[in-house]
Amino acid sequence: MRLNEHFKNLGESYLFVTIAKKVAAYQKEHPEAKIIRLGIGDVTRPLAPAVIDALHKAVEDQARQETFHGYSPDSDGYPFLREAIAGYYKNFGVELDPSEIFVGDGAKSDLGNMLDLFDRDNTVLIPDPVYPVYVDTNVMDGRPIVYLDATEENGFLPLPDPGRRADLIYLCSPNNPTGAAYNKEQLQAWVDYALEQKAVLLYDAAYEAFITEPGLPHSIFEIPGAKQCAMEFCSLSKTAGFTGMRCGYTVLPRELRFGGVSLGKLWQRRQGCKFNGVSYLTQRGAQAVFTPEGQRQIREAIACYQENARVMMEALDRLGIPYTGGVNSPYLWLKCPEGLGSWDYFDFLLERAQIVGTPGEGFGRNGEGWFRLTAFGDPAQTREAMARLERLGQ
Amino acid sequence: MRLNEHFKNLGESYLFVTIAKKVAAYQKEHPEAKIIRLGIGDVTRPLAPAVIDALHKAVEDQARQETFHGYSPDSDGYPFLREAIAGYYKNFGVELDPSEIFVGDGAKSDLGNMLDLFDRDNTVLIPDPVYPVYVDTNVMDGRPIVYLDATEENGFLPLPDPGRRADLIYLCSPNNPTGAAYNKEQLQAWVDYALEQKAVLLYDAAYEAFITEPGLPHSIFEIPGAKQCAMEFCSLSKTAGFTGMRCGYTVLPRELRFGGVSLGKLWQRRQGCKFNGVSYLTQRGAQAVFTPEGQRQIREAIACYQENARVMMEALDRLGIPYTGGVNSPYLWLKCPEGLGSWDYFDFLLERAQIVGTPGEGFGRNGEGWFRLTAFGDPAQTREAMARLERLGQ
Repeated sequence: MRLNEHFKNLGESYLFVTIAKKVAAYQKEHPEAKIIRLGIGDVTRPLAPAVIDALHKAVEDQARQETFHGYSPDSDGYPFLREAIAGYYKNFGVELDPSEIFVGDGAKSDLGNMLDLFDRDNTVLIPDPVYPVYVDTNVMDGRPIVYLDATEENGFLPLPDPGRRADLIYLCSPNNPTGAAYNKEQLQAWVDYALEQKAVLLYDAAYEAFITEPGLPHSIFEIPGAKQCAMEFCSLSKTAGFTGMRCGYTVLPRELRFGGVSLGKLWQRRQGCKFNGVSYLTQRGAQAVFTPEGQRQIREAIACYQENARVMMEALDRLGIPYTGGVNSPYLWLKCPEGLGSWDYFDFLLERAQIVGTPGEGFGRNGEGWFRLTAFGDPAQTREAMARLERLGQ
Repeated sequence: MRLNEHFKNLGESYLFVTIAKKVAAYQKEHPEAKIIRLGIGDVTRPLAPAVIDALHKAVEDQARQETFHGYSPDSDGYPFLREAIAGYYKNFGVELDPSEIFVGDGAKSDLGNMLDLFDRDNTVLIPDPVYPVYVDTNVMDGRPIVYLDATEENGFLPLPDPGRRADLIYLCSPNNPTGAAYNKEQLQAWVDYALEQKAVLLYDAAYEAFITEPGLPHSIFEIPGAKQCAMEFCSLSKTAGFTGMRCGYTVLPRELRFGGVSLGKLWQRRQGCKFNGVSYLTQRGAQAVFTPEGQRQIREAIACYQENARVMMEALDRLGIPYTGGVNSPYLWLKCPEGLGSWDYFDFLLERAQIVGTPGEGFGRNGEGWFRLTAFGDPAQTREAMARLERLGQ
């Protein structure tokens, strides 16, 4: 019996483990210290009341034989939810049939499992810095990876290099970790490149709800030609506080075909074989997110995080610390002070201001010298963290 | 861009689609017909009151900032649930550390995704007839499959052939579709064979809660040596009516190592990359299943299904129809009348008795000439179905 030897090439996932260890050690030495965590991108506000009501009602459905829901008729989601999501896309002027929307238990699962559809010899193009899952899931399959430099010079929004070969292309906009967001012209360049290369664009739109600048695309399908080359991964985690609920959706348009084969049909076959649908309760909760009441309520939570981001940006501006993100994203991507590596800056902020962030180096080579803070914290704590930073002059 | 070409080798999953079409066509022609569905293995009884209470409470947790649960600290399950499951295993005399138990969203997902750990050149041994997922998930990876005949002659409980090479071995006991269950001596032969072959046993115990005969093993880990060669897949779907809730657990003992590599560690790495844990609500509901109250309540539901099975077995005995299963399983595996193929018998029962079952041919070559009925139906409907069968003399 031979193991998948590609696992040997995976780096250990030290990042958040190391952070947790350092924080625990500091807290032990300084039991009185009030540490403020702006590191992990997890939400802190409770679920919207409309979602809570829908969940209680769904639990009651499961308590009675007449309304009990067993296996969902389709591993890709109940029609009520797929239709609600198709309705949401109309906000962006994107027309989708519910059958082009596949409900899953989160963007992370779908991003990873989607790779089952592709040969292991394809060349993968991944921006650096990046959400580490894109890299690790391809390393597990032994696919060759080419990195694309996202740097201060290109505003962390690299554009395609027409001379470079790629089969699978990852884009995340608004970006994790940098918070930078592509405009329509830039995404058009990517769509044109993917069509020319006959490549697939794996577009991660998990943070679209945080876009505030008018005119920026919320969906890759706002771009002409995208339905022929792109799939889009979305999540309710950050949008509606579903990090503990587990629900996302992936869009595979009918036009997305390679050699006559529909990727949507392949994905349906993959999921039908290795997945049995998202919990009925979760799907009912997700449906409530897309009602007018649910939308109003989740916008309130998002506005609260956006206010945190504003508070943080103002403090950074006053301090003269260069950063990206914040405007269209819950993430702020700070430049570390001259000469400090991202782990040095981590230690510095922990020790001198009791603030926990994420060292940019954890997101790839180009993340060195940068640092991620999230706007998902409690508002009072976020203000206190910025006050500490300003007292420090740093 | 090249697709995973192995998808071309997948048979279309016609089975339940074809059944649904035939039933719909019959109902359209006979709108007055009262069709009784004993085909798909889905439960019909609502969730246990203890589970319902736990779910409502968990929903309330998600409604308040102080008790809100976001990302679970570990994609492999909350300690409260892993500890509860370890406690359950003590019923079988099996000692497990909670860290050896991995909570997932169902046995189907875990069975499929587990294959990420293994090289694609391994030889897979799969009994026939069988749960089609074992076959399809390996076909998707292009792994060579050797089938093992489960027939009336061997009581649908094939034993290892020491001369046959295997790397990955699938066993399901009590079996889907045949309902046959291995005893300890038979499982010992499989464990000895796996150890001798240095193979991995993928043991599907999804139906263990339906075992009634004393002395039959509920877990492969009751067998000496199993911790060195086996992993066990379990599910709350049939045990606690969780088909729509999505929760299962997979046991990878610490001793399960190949070339010094712990399969549990590899699985943890796989899940950490491509999965973000089971919904907090579901895990709280699952925890309630393992309380004394929850156990008493789920045993009542199982007893109801077992009573259905008893009614069915008595009818088949009176009719002189040969079958296996029913005693230790919610499935009954009937021999079709002489000369009738399993699809012929399907049509016969639908047209003459308005009973829907599952043609054995859908489970593999050796399923031809056999037919599966499930005991998961409503008790009154199950009795009515058997009365129709007896009136038919068939």
